Amino acid sequence: MNIELINTGSELMLGRVLNTHQQWICRRLADHGYVVTRQVSVADAGRDIQQAVREALSGADLVITTGGLGPTSDDLTRDGIAELLGKKLREDAKALANVENFFAIRKRPMPEKTRVQALVPEGALVLHNQHGTAPGLAIEIRPNPFRSDGRASWLILLPGPPRELQPMLSEQVIPLLRQKLPLESAFVSRTLKTTGLGESVVEERIAAPLKHLTDAGLELGYCARTGDVEVRIATRGAAAEKTVAEAEQIVRRLIGAHIFGEDDDTLEAVVVRLMTGRKQTLALAESCTGGCIANRITDVPGASAVLLAGWVTYSNQAKQDFLGVAAETLEEHGAVSEAVARELAEGARRRTGSDFALAVTGIAGPTGGTPDKPVGTVFIALATGRHTCVLNPMNRYDRGTFKYVTSQQALELLRRTLLNC
Amino acid sequence: MNIELINTGSELMLGRVLNTHQQWICRRLADHGYVVTRQVSVADAGRDIQQAVREALSGADLVITTGGLGPTSDDLTRDGIAELLGKKLREDAKALANVENFFAIRKRPMPEKTRVQALVPEGALVLHNQHGTAPGLAIEIRPNPFRSDGRASWLILLPGPPRELQPMLSEQVIPLLRQKLPLESAFVSRTLKTTGLGESVVEERIAAPLKHLTDAGLELGYCARTGDVEVRIATRGAAAEKTVAEAEQIVRRLIGAHIFGEDDDTLEAVVVRLMTGRKQTLALAESCTGGCIANRITDVPGASAVLLAGWVTYSNQAKQDFLGVAAETLEEHGAVSEAVARELAEGARRRTGSDFALAVTGIAGPTGGTPDKPVGTVFIALATGRHTCVLNPMNRYDRGTFKYVTSQQALELLRRTLLNC
Repeated sequence: MNIELINTGSELMLGRVLNTHQQWICRRLADHGYVVTRQVSVADAGRDIQQAVREALSGADLVITTGGLGPTSDDLTRDGIAELLGKKLREDAKALANVENFFAIRKRPMPEKTRVQALVPEGALVLHNQHGTAPGLAIEIRPNPFRSDGRASWLILLPGPPRELQPMLSEQVIPLLRQKLPLESAFVSRTLKTTGLGESVVEERIAAPLKHLTDAGLELGYCARTGDVEVRIATRGAAAEKTVAEAEQIVRRLIGAHIFGEDDDTLEAVVVRLMTGRKQTLALAESCTGGCIANRITDVPGASAVLLAGWVTYSNQAKQDFLGVAAETLEEHGAVSEAVARELAEGARRRTGSDFALAVTGIAGPTGGTPDKPVGTVFIALATGRHTCVLNPMNRYDRGTFKYVTSQQALELLRRTLLNC
Repeated sequence: MNIELINTGSELMLGRVLNTHQQWICRRLADHGYVVTRQVSVADAGRDIQQAVREALSGADLVITTGGLGPTSDDLTRDGIAELLGKKLREDAKALANVENFFAIRKRPMPEKTRVQALVPEGALVLHNQHGTAPGLAIEIRPNPFRSDGRASWLILLPGPPRELQPMLSEQVIPLLRQKLPLESAFVSRTLKTTGLGESVVEERIAAPLKHLTDAGLELGYCARTGDVEVRIATRGAAAEKTVAEAEQIVRRLIGAHIFGEDDDTLEAVVVRLMTGRKQTLALAESCTGGCIANRITDVPGASAVLLAGWVTYSNQAKQDFLGVAAETLEEHGAVSEAVARELAEGARRRTGSDFALAVTGIAGPTGGTPDKPVGTVFIALATGRHTCVLNPMNRYDRGTFKYVTSQQALELLRRTLLNC
């Protein structure tokens, strides 16, 4: 099956934004066995969009576009496609109600021109937008005048904002594809998410033991991201489920302690799930991560059952005033030290009565390093009541990466303590 | 001028990695007035690469490819292009010396297969690789058999690793373009970043007043992101600088109070810069944003001069214990209320002695809403010592977006208070 993805947006061509849609959509489709053959980006210009779609429809079974469905004058995809296909636009009552409702809920007047988002080409399936105003559209091009063999193609138009596009793809487009463009054979894919090992170490441990399966067609892929490495195992055919299960068992045997989740799991969601199930509570004392851990924990629905309180104690004064770190400890060891990390964690736990408390102190950079404690130095403490353990990794990265990697190590310390692994 | 960028890599098509090359190259080229017209990604397959290059050469004056020049079996670009162009490969002495030198410096034996990287198509200019082994290649396609008008095109092949590609583009490709494909006229682009207005409202306010300029060729683009809308104005020609300045003046007159920065500015960086310049300090009390504001503020280098402390007070107990919210206030008004937001902000300011304190309390969802206070309800308070003001927006979004949009509104309230606008 030929699949082409077309991303529209002048901001892409000017390099103003990263094309995160490409990765997200390619990945999500590949997880379901639909591998994108070709991806194209063009500016928000009617002719460029039309030409890209025409070329794509000349060879692809499925063409997906992103963006250009909004209400402003550079939202040209809807009109351009309707013109290309020779289809009239009609106002869709449900889509219009969704636009009206969007503004009503937010108590904002509905600008007249947002009404244009309810226009859909004749014969198109309307994909409801739960998180915005522009609906997605799915159109079967049959007969397909752009393809020399005349074979039908599906054309799917998705809105640009990720929070609108992503649930629409997962909840509406994937089921539509399964129905309208079923795969020729079964496809099974699993992604295991690990943290604490580098990509080459993961490969060193698992590649050889999986060789009999990769030789027989198992796809094995690694994806290193900030703070974690994903292992993807996938295969097609009647025995796909069995093969992937065997491969997963081998991977779990070899690096199981480092696997924190599967597919879309995040480390923060895994930790909140574990603690919610056990009715355990958490407090946080963050210096160098500056709220990054609290922010990740509170991204998880239901986090309020787990997180009692967090402190961002950037200054020494705040460490003393609010978490009871001793002036002598700061004096003797410095703010970035094992002793201060320990007192921060124990202070947060004592003040909230939580079961666990995590604390971090370190030097995020770019300035503030010393020969003794260079940029990247960090101490992570976990107080459990029975004891307090402290990690001392060296996270030599840019500031944002430093914060994220440190938060990942802190959450992983908590996860492994909870699981005793 | 038509410019096409071709990124090769199977990992792109599977969504394993982000295509950071696209943004970096497009941006760097646009900064010099070379705007990419079209970008294509294809897998590491000889036929796909050849087809993409053939199509690109049929219309573009400049085609740039990335990746596929290395020594391994999935590096197919060099051979595929030579075959497509009907050019023989010859070993380039300088390129070979660079490969040999790379291994000699690192005191590692040179694997025989790395020698393939010294092969270059006849007539190609060799772009020296300071940071790796595969040179870049620049080939003038003259005559151009793929273009119906027979016009010449330039084809430039760059290695995939960013640390090799980036200096090669800046130091060798840009000068080559200036010489071989000079711009017809000057190019000027500016991006103004706004918050607090929807994309369609921004357009409603500025499109008509800019019409005389857009009619005369000014490009006007909008990019709506979570919590902000970017307005991009750009044009070419001898009067470009003057036209863009006039357009900027009009935009600033109409929506100036909503413009928080330009180009790469973030709202948190603007706020930290303002407060650092005035030696002012900040404290944060976050309930529903859960550390999102603190995390954003501390992403900015030098934030420690501004942020004294932050609290994440999710529970009512924490609000009382750590920030002195009165039990009666919680009882009478509920945790999500103007009165509690006010007491949180004033408590944080009093406890730290900061100049300003921001506080937020609200219902992030997906659960926890009531008919009186549905999901999305939020109160944002800013205590300045002289007075405390409270906003009450309705942020009906998914949880992550709710947190981000609320943090954006809080930071914007602070920015406008600082600027008294």
